Amino acid sequence: MKQNRETARSVQVARYSDGKSLPDEPDEIAVEEPLEIRVEGQSIAVVMRTPGHDRELAAGFALTEGIVRDGSDIFEITSCLTTTEQPGNVIEISLKDPAKFDIAKLSRHLFSSSSCGVCAKATIEAAMQQFPAIKFGPGFDPKILLQLPKKLAAAQETFQRTGGLHACALFNLAGELFLVREDVGRHNALDKLIGHQLLAKRLPLGNCILLLSGRVSFEMTQKALAAGIAIIAAISAPTSLAVEFARANNQTLIGFLRGERMNIYSGKLRCLRETS
Amino acid sequence: MKQNRETARSVQVARYSDGKSLPDEPDEIAVEEPLEIRVEGQSIAVVMRTPGHDRELAAGFALTEGIVRDGSDIFEITSCLTTTEQPGNVIEISLKDPAKFDIAKLSRHLFSSSSCGVCAKATIEAAMQQFPAIKFGPGFDPKILLQLPKKLAAAQETFQRTGGLHACALFNLAGELFLVREDVGRHNALDKLIGHQLLAKRLPLGNCILLLSGRVSFEMTQKALAAGIAIIAAISAPTSLAVEFARANNQTLIGFLRGERMNIYSGKLRCLRETS
Repeated sequence: MKQNRETARSVQVARYSDGKSLPDEPDEIAVEEPLEIRVEGQSIAVVMRTPGHDRELAAGFALTEGIVRDGSDIFEITSCLTTTEQPGNVIEISLKDPAKFDIAKLSRHLFSSSSCGVCAKATIEAAMQQFPAIKFGPGFDPKILLQLPKKLAAAQETFQRTGGLHACALFNLAGELFLVREDVGRHNALDKLIGHQLLAKRLPLGNCILLLSGRVSFEMTQKALAAGIAIIAAISAPTSLAVEFARANNQTLIGFLRGERMNIYSGKLRCLRETS
Repeated sequence: MKQNRETARSVQVARYSDGKSLPDEPDEIAVEEPLEIRVEGQSIAVVMRTPGHDRELAAGFALTEGIVRDGSDIFEITSCLTTTEQPGNVIEISLKDPAKFDIAKLSRHLFSSSSCGVCAKATIEAAMQQFPAIKFGPGFDPKILLQLPKKLAAAQETFQRTGGLHACALFNLAGELFLVREDVGRHNALDKLIGHQLLAKRLPLGNCILLLSGRVSFEMTQKALAAGIAIIAAISAPTSLAVEFARANNQTLIGFLRGERMNIYSGKLRCLRETS
């Protein structure tokens, strides 16, 4: 599928600066459009996303919501170009074994809005059953981690223009960036990243470092676990439930990765420390 | 209802700084916990939120999802303290006229994940039917707007400690702050703010300025419209759909409100300009 949808769009903007109103001029803003995801012909969700990499988004969403276990569960993913008023904003997942798909079970899960159950405890337990905790996971060199935000910033194309996108990136343990995805929604950016690796049959991602441009919520650690990611680093703060989830699942969780510093909230034994 | 739930929590954190691993020490992180919202005994959503102001969150959610039209539609909102393993994480809305509540219709709406319909056009049209567009709306002095971010920063208690919360604030047209709400979720922060005003019978908010600490998505402009808010200002960028929605509904939308500057994406005729 072609990925030629625009991720930024020019609009006329009136600027006010230093006490003066300036004439309208064009400015780039991040595109947000709905994508309806269908599985076996049934609508399962509409996500507000930045167009592009929609097959990856659908694949990643299917994995992190527990609809598929790996790439071999997917028969094909096709964009419905003619069946809607909004060409390209409906995507269809066909499964290898359609009989296994139970929308009633899924509705209950997705219906629970921010993808958690009735209480945190039940949810975390359910997630641990659904996605196995990390067993080992690699060590990492903190000096290599400190270089990652700069590498991400250099790679974030649309953000540079719009200032309006979340980004996720995958690095190997040597700190080499090999995949970046951006989206108006942080969950979508991560689903696109994971979906790309799923479709490339590269899961689980046990030997990667996931870098997030913003904050880390429970859902981000949960999605990372679905892909087998052991090391999550973020430029900004984690939430309490993200820390609890990472600790319960043996994930390394790093926040405030800025300049020469970082906070290690979980899994610090993987940190290959300098003797100082 | 008492609002004594903690919004920040202390956890042990290992720090790495300037090439050295430092011993663990306590750090404050933003609390994230699930809240199940029930209407007439039926679960309609679970949101991941920062505890506190839960009645307001439930009231605001009910308004912005179209379950109630104003405060008079609500009979009472009560926290279920004993019916769950997680005391205080279930909240129940009773309606004045329970017969009007149709969960089947709601499920379809909420089920659509990020609260939009099948395509952007249908959604915007639906929203315009659901919440009337702003008719007039007040003028504003751009010099007053420039002062708002500092006032919000001074009022953001938990963010100062955790760096992990979104904030929304309401100001009058003289630039006086009168309400702030913080949450790990930006939608929750806005629902709490609107819910407070709903319960205080102060809707619609036509003569207020809404300030958002972060970015502006479609859903934020939609929620603001549900409360009749004509002027939305944000520290960061809007999305394309937020701009389209604000223009279609006669809302003023300002982004990148920083230092001595701002961008006016929609509704600039309300800007009472200096002659320069």
